[in-house]
Order: sequence, then C-alpha cells, then structure tokens
Amino acid sequence: MNCILLPAENFSADAAKIDSLSQVSHVTKVLGAKVGDRLKIGQIGGNLGTAVIESITANSIQLGNVQLNTAPPAKLDLTVILALPRPKVLRRLIMDMTALGVRDIILINSYRTQKSYWQSPMLERIDEFVLEGLQQSIDTIVPSITLQKRFKPFVEDSLASLISNRAIVAHPYSQQSFSEFLQLQPSRELPNLVCIGAEGGWIDYEIELLSAQGCTPVHIGSRILRTEAAVNAILGQWLL
Amino acid sequence: MNCILLPAENFSADAAKIDSLSQVSHVTKVLGAKVGDRLKIGQIGGNLGTAVIESITANSIQLGNVQLNTAPPAKLDLTVILALPRPKVLRRLIMDMTALGVRDIILINSYRTQKSYWQSPMLERIDEFVLEGLQQSIDTIVPSITLQKRFKPFVEDSLASLISNRAIVAHPYSQQSFSEFLQLQPSRELPNLVCIGAEGGWIDYEIELLSAQGCTPVHIGSRILRTEAAVNAILGQWLL
Repeated sequence: MNCILLPAENFSADAAKIDSLSQVSHVTKVLGAKVGDRLKIGQIGGNLGTAVIESITANSIQLGNVQLNTAPPAKLDLTVILALPRPKVLRRLIMDMTALGVRDIILINSYRTQKSYWQSPMLERIDEFVLEGLQQSIDTIVPSITLQKRFKPFVEDSLASLISNRAIVAHPYSQQSFSEFLQLQPSRELPNLVCIGAEGGWIDYEIELLSAQGCTPVHIGSRILRTEAAVNAILGQWLL
Repeated sequence: MNCILLPAENFSADAAKIDSLSQVSHVTKVLGAKVGDRLKIGQIGGNLGTAVIESITANSIQLGNVQLNTAPPAKLDLTVILALPRPKVLRRLIMDMTALGVRDIILINSYRTQKSYWQSPMLERIDEFVLEGLQQSIDTIVPSITLQKRFKPFVEDSLASLISNRAIVAHPYSQQSFSEFLQLQPSRELPNLVCIGAEGGWIDYEIELLSAQGCTPVHIGSRILRTEAAVNAILGQWLL
C-alpha cells in the first residue's frame, strides 16, 4: 500500500476513520506509524492527500487535519478484454491492470476458460483486488469491471461499439507483430482496446470472431509468457 | 510447462528419460499424455524438438524417437541488475526474466533490501525457477545469474564494463521518461543494461552512484507498480 484509500462515508469535515483491519494493520505494523504521524490517504473516487493520526485502537485509526488536494492520475483510454484466468492468478491480474490505470476491464469466457472458474469465490473478491491495485499505484478511481460469460453474443453484438480507435488481440501465432502494427498507425497511436487470452490463448474460431469485429491479431515474439507477464509486457507500452 | 527440458545426461542416442517427479506428474496429470503420444521436449543448453512416450512408471517416463532439430530462440542482448526482492516474489521474477529471454541477471544488494533476504532458502532454488521460465517460454539456454552482496564495489568497479551500448536505471522520480530516452537514441535503440529496484526503489545515493557509472535514470509514469509488474512492463519493450 503506497496510500490508504477510504470510502466517502469514512470522512466528515476534516476528519476521517480507518476501520478496515488490513489497513489498520498495515499502518501500525508495516509502516510502524504512531499518533502525530502524517499518512498518505485518498478518498475512493475522489482526491489524494494526507491526514494526521489522532488515535489508534486495535480496530480503528482516527485521522485529523485531512487535506485532499491532489487529483488522481489520469486513467488510460483503454479497455482490456481478458479471458477469465485461473482463480489463483485473478488477484494479481486485477491488481496489476488497476495499477496500470486501465479504465475498463471485461472478463470474458473463452474456449480454454474452465467452467469452474466462473464459480470461484475469488470473483466475489474483485473489489478487494481493485482496492489493492489503487493503493499500490496511488490512484482513487475504480475501473469498470464487467463479466461476460457468453463469448459469441458479446463479441458479435457489443465489441465493435467499444472500439473508438483501433483494437488488437494478442495471439502468438499471428503474422504481424505489435511493433509492426504500431508502425502502421499515425504517430504510433496505441489501440484503445486489447484482447488477451488466458493460459493457452485463444482458439482459431475466437480469433476469427474477434478479427471480424475489428481486432487485429498481433504477436509479441515467439516466447510464451505467463498471463500476468504478458499483460504487463503488453500494457507497458501505454506507460511509455 | 510448454515443453519438457531435460539435462544432456538424460539423453542417449535417440532415447531420453524424464525422471523429475514434477515433470512426470505434469506429463501424466496436466497433459494427460499416454504411451505413443509425442511430447515437445528440449535439451538444456541444446536444441528443441519432440519425442514419443515409450513407457510410463510412477517415477519416470521413457522416451524414444527423439528429434532435436530446432534451435532455441535468440536471447535478448540485455543485462538486468535487480535489487534482491522479497523471497516471496523471487520465484516469479526469475521465471519471468528467464521467459523474456534476458541473457544476464545480476541480483544486487540495495539499501531497501532487507538483510534477511540474502539468507532465504529461495536463493538455493534459483536453478529450479530458471527451468520453469525456460519451460514456459520454450527456450533451452540458461541465463547467467550472479549475486552481488556489495552494491558500491560492484557498481564502481564492474558496472561500466557491462555497458556496451546505453544503460538505464528505473526511477519513478527521474526527470526523463523511458520514452523520451528512447527518442534520443539512434533508431530508438534499446539499452543493453537495465537496473530495477525492488519495493521502495533505489535511494538517492544509489541513483547517484549508478548515474556516475553511465546509467540514465528514467521513469515509466507516476504510477508505482509491483516489482514483477514493473519488470515485465519495462522489459516488454524488448519484445516489440
């Protein structure tokens, strides 16, 4: 946590209260903060700033002198459509995409997504992973996250309307590299929509359907990366 | 595992033997392979290819018709100097840097590296994490990995000789972005050496020492990423 984010209802006038046990534990144990210390905080959906610790109990920390004067960093103009991954890696993927500043995240079914993944209790915890990502990257704005359990109707009926600029689908077996794709764009302009498969990638039928709706298949070299590594390696382009 | 890598001593004529329990379990349980099936294999330090399963026991798999005709992918002309991270994330970092094709990895002490990290049993398991990265990315060539427990002597005496082209050090508080740095290079040529801090990054003194030896501090935006995410986001540039 590089800042402590609190919901709007925890603020009143220039005071605020930390009442989540993981945040209290982080402040007292990891940061080792004491009464009188100033903390980096933010209001979820609002500004970033600081506050001073007024009192600490086992379950809550009272803050005073709250100053929220800094706007959060801009989001990326980017929608990521990700094949729902194994529950084990969902936490880090949501954290990382949030931390990178992706504005819209769509978790979609794919041929290689096991049915059981949609029943995972991890899906109930997405808000928690988003909060971790925001606190990591010092941002306050929650990305939109939607679940699409039906691939074909979503791609055929809704995908094209999400593409304002250009769109790509990451596919190790495509002809064109992401670099070649960028060189063909005016001023190397980045796409506003990226589709990324989970382990095993997309099947040919899915690539055909995505292509038909305007997503250009691109590869990032012959090396097969873990989904997390691939997401960060691809989205790293938006940080440059 | 996208291929099964075996050491040279497991090969004889056109036969080979899988005797690591994790590989045997992967072949039989994850891949569900049976006698007569063809597997993607490789020889550590050698070529990639295929072989046919001749027999399976609980502890080993005998392979025949071994064909090793494909050269491994090229390594990146890149040295990564990484501040030794928390043991918990070391495995994934070594896997990912290996999978991305980094040729030389140097794990170095830094002000924010806790002393206990150097005593972690995870350091004994680096070869295992390298093998995972190679089997992930379908490569056979082990990167060189060295540990440097003394920051200052290494940076002052050895660093400059490793820089054949240009070098950067990732630092969120630098003036120049990585993108601006690249635009100043002929044909956007990438550096051959990258220094990346672990959680908390480098302290000013370290940045000064690295700069004095030829590493340009660059940032990748204001967002603070997890070490793993930052490594993949930065090294993703080499895949384009």
